[in-house]
Amino acid sequence: MSNKGITPRSENYSQWYLDVIERADLAENSSVRGCMVIKPYGFAIWENIQKELDRRIKESGAKNAYFPIFIPKSFFSKEASHVKGFAKECAVVTHYRLKESEDGKGVIVDPEAKLEEELVVRPTSETIMYDTFSRWISSWRDLPLRINQWANIVRWEKRTRPFLRTTEFLWQEGHTVHATHGESEKEVLRALKMYSDFAKEVLALEVYSGRKSESEKFAGALNTYGVEALMQDGKALQFGTSHDLGQNFAKVFGISFADDDGKTKHPWQTSWGVSTRMMGAVIMSHSDDLGLILPPRIAPIKIAIIPIFNDESQNEVLQFSENLYEEISKVVDGVELDQREFLSPGFKFNEWEKKGVPIRIEIGKRDIEKDEVVIVRRDTNEKNSVNSREIGVRVLALLEEIQQNLLKRSTEILQNNTHEVSSYTEFKKILKGKKGFVKAYWCGREECEENIKYETKATTRCFSKEGEGNCIYCGKETADEWVFAIPY
Amino acid sequence: MSNKGITPRSENYSQWYLDVIERADLAENSSVRGCMVIKPYGFAIWENIQKELDRRIKESGAKNAYFPIFIPKSFFSKEASHVKGFAKECAVVTHYRLKESEDGKGVIVDPEAKLEEELVVRPTSETIMYDTFSRWISSWRDLPLRINQWANIVRWEKRTRPFLRTTEFLWQEGHTVHATHGESEKEVLRALKMYSDFAKEVLALEVYSGRKSESEKFAGALNTYGVEALMQDGKALQFGTSHDLGQNFAKVFGISFADDDGKTKHPWQTSWGVSTRMMGAVIMSHSDDLGLILPPRIAPIKIAIIPIFNDESQNEVLQFSENLYEEISKVVDGVELDQREFLSPGFKFNEWEKKGVPIRIEIGKRDIEKDEVVIVRRDTNEKNSVNSREIGVRVLALLEEIQQNLLKRSTEILQNNTHEVSSYTEFKKILKGKKGFVKAYWCGREECEENIKYETKATTRCFSKEGEGNCIYCGKETADEWVFAIPY
Repeated sequence: MSNKGITPRSENYSQWYLDVIERADLAENSSVRGCMVIKPYGFAIWENIQKELDRRIKESGAKNAYFPIFIPKSFFSKEASHVKGFAKECAVVTHYRLKESEDGKGVIVDPEAKLEEELVVRPTSETIMYDTFSRWISSWRDLPLRINQWANIVRWEKRTRPFLRTTEFLWQEGHTVHATHGESEKEVLRALKMYSDFAKEVLALEVYSGRKSESEKFAGALNTYGVEALMQDGKALQFGTSHDLGQNFAKVFGISFADDDGKTKHPWQTSWGVSTRMMGAVIMSHSDDLGLILPPRIAPIKIAIIPIFNDESQNEVLQFSENLYEEISKVVDGVELDQREFLSPGFKFNEWEKKGVPIRIEIGKRDIEKDEVVIVRRDTNEKNSVNSREIGVRVLALLEEIQQNLLKRSTEILQNNTHEVSSYTEFKKILKGKKGFVKAYWCGREECEENIKYETKATTRCFSKEGEGNCIYCGKETADEWVFAIPY
Repeated sequence: MSNKGITPRSENYSQWYLDVIERADLAENSSVRGCMVIKPYGFAIWENIQKELDRRIKESGAKNAYFPIFIPKSFFSKEASHVKGFAKECAVVTHYRLKESEDGKGVIVDPEAKLEEELVVRPTSETIMYDTFSRWISSWRDLPLRINQWANIVRWEKRTRPFLRTTEFLWQEGHTVHATHGESEKEVLRALKMYSDFAKEVLALEVYSGRKSESEKFAGALNTYGVEALMQDGKALQFGTSHDLGQNFAKVFGISFADDDGKTKHPWQTSWGVSTRMMGAVIMSHSDDLGLILPPRIAPIKIAIIPIFNDESQNEVLQFSENLYEEISKVVDGVELDQREFLSPGFKFNEWEKKGVPIRIEIGKRDIEKDEVVIVRRDTNEKNSVNSREIGVRVLALLEEIQQNLLKRSTEILQNNTHEVSSYTEFKKILKGKKGFVKAYWCGREECEENIKYETKATTRCFSKEGEGNCIYCGKETADEWVFAIPY
């Protein structure tokens, strides 16, 4: 560990990630296996993400609603491949009462309060929602139906890591129903674009996005599309998916509608979601050995002002700082004037640094005399003196500059770490070395995909483009180029 | 049922409530026992409630965070009276995996995936939060700590009713920790006032609020305070509570701090919450035999504009309506221009009426010729023609008038249905008749309270005031006047 309490990335990347989360006060493990506590600062970031994404989701015509957290076991097993995909990670409620143990020393599950049918804690809500949709839809006039839900989700994961993979996580799940496959396919791609736009414009993350292979698709879907970001260790992080569900669920849940041609048909469905996993992507992509770096658009505190004074200069510096705070608060939400006693300026600098606050302003007596303040930007850690009279304009411009600079950096990293290869030797060399995304042709056969995974740990992340080439593994001619990477 | 599909209140009040919910499209029963689906229109009301309450909670200094939905059984049973209060209604997770049944016909709970320690689905979060707080608090400098959580909650209820009592519901739970009992008592009353202010200012509901009796308090609390609203059938609905937890939980969860006098002490805690039950209070209080009535401040659609035309006048009326829509949207959020085809104006009037939209605007050719539009206010169903040029100012004022009128009406109902009585005969007569709130002296003995409940179904709702009187049941002299009512 460095003196900041954060393990350098070069030393241990996994530990660095955990240290950044701990030192920035984002989350911590709870006493429940695999479940985390999202602490106030981490949750404030999530709220900013939610707010902007919710706006975009509503703009698409979807409406928020809320469905039960419990799914009857029989519903869950209606769609064969769906249950197969999720059965191994389901938390199951079997009883509805506790009672005092006979020795009086505690409580036990009351064996007489056994449920007739067990309830699964939702690992995703297709089944419980579509059972309901079957009652909401009867005519083509009821379509398209667009419903979104913000909810907690439970999947019993063996190995967990804060934000990236936790037993319980928070997410948004959009579910839409359409009269034709053409329309539902459009919706799948619209949601995919919404996520990649959101990644770029809000999270400052450049990403790849596209169709996933058979083996990587959602349990029960015809096709799954995903958004993939690149982490600093060269591994890929999938942070959003959009599914073309075809008519699979409509058929088993009896959703049908009278079309305008008078015929009764099954509609076409989609579902799409992003989760608190996105937080993991943001933390892992932008941060450095000093701690968290946050894109200004999701930073709960955008600017921290730290007055530096001794007994003599205290009044003057504090007064000046308060005026500056008022001034900046007129144009920026999320300004913090750090007036905490007992703490040295150095301690405060360090704390706001670790918390990824985009701009830090330092104010000392000498600065005031020169009508200046010191501005430190977190993305580059550059220090600059600026005239305090133009502070509002300057910080506004700088916040935008930081946002754009983080995206530029992310784009460069993605580009510099994407390799187009045509030989398997080269492919393996890259994945043994700096890793990153590798574009290569693949024939589409599961056998080749599995062998590649076994030999290199890399999987197909998403479809890249049509062209001409030979399968990187078996050499067979194919038109399909794919993006490979070692995934989180 | 009337021709609007809503049972009149006079005929069957319970059925009326269910009809209003169904016809306004607020919620419906799901296939999971006791769990409801909150439909988009109902959820939009909840979002408006959330948004304004969240603002007030944050203003109080509380920060949002998120804690696990699961509580280890052993945590849950640490505070003796707490577990006693909740044990009978806990959904319990005992297994973490499903597997294919041997006959291949479905899935079963995998007996090999039994949890070592069962997990309770949170019926409230004191125990899981305070386990965490014990790690967050070590010094007086860490206090006060104010945390709020928006979450889903599960209590296995025998008899359920949409919004009022459901197995799963949504709520907000605030949890604070203080150095002294004086401070925590202040916080308990602050939260109580926040809820009663919110009821009045936002939900247009006049309420009683105050301390609850021993038998009505939260399991594990020193004292509970509640907010009580009056429904149209004369029954009381508790829609928010605030608990003085004393040091009970701090002691069992090992929360302690070094105070500034150098001594190690247990802090004093509070918790307070309101839930989707509030939606039930709003629906039941304001609505009438035509359907839902919503206070403008939480109405997702504040104004519905309905053009009335024939083939000939169509273009003119639609154009005029669109202009009016633009005009009103400049000053009001939540304006809907109902341009749906296939539906008659009468059908549309009826629909917006049932959905409780505060203002309906009807526009026909004749109105346009007179530069007028017809405005119908939902609270009184009064119709008025107003000059279309001053529409913005008029609707703004009318929305405010409707909000105030609903509060005025609620206040009058509360006052007219509050009876101060000094004889048990009178007490019983009121509770057999029109019901309502009854203020009466009670000696504080559980025996009297129980007998009153057994004989009249009325319970103490909250403490009223100190005065001089005799227990309504046993006649013993006492200073304590209480508010009684038959509760939901």
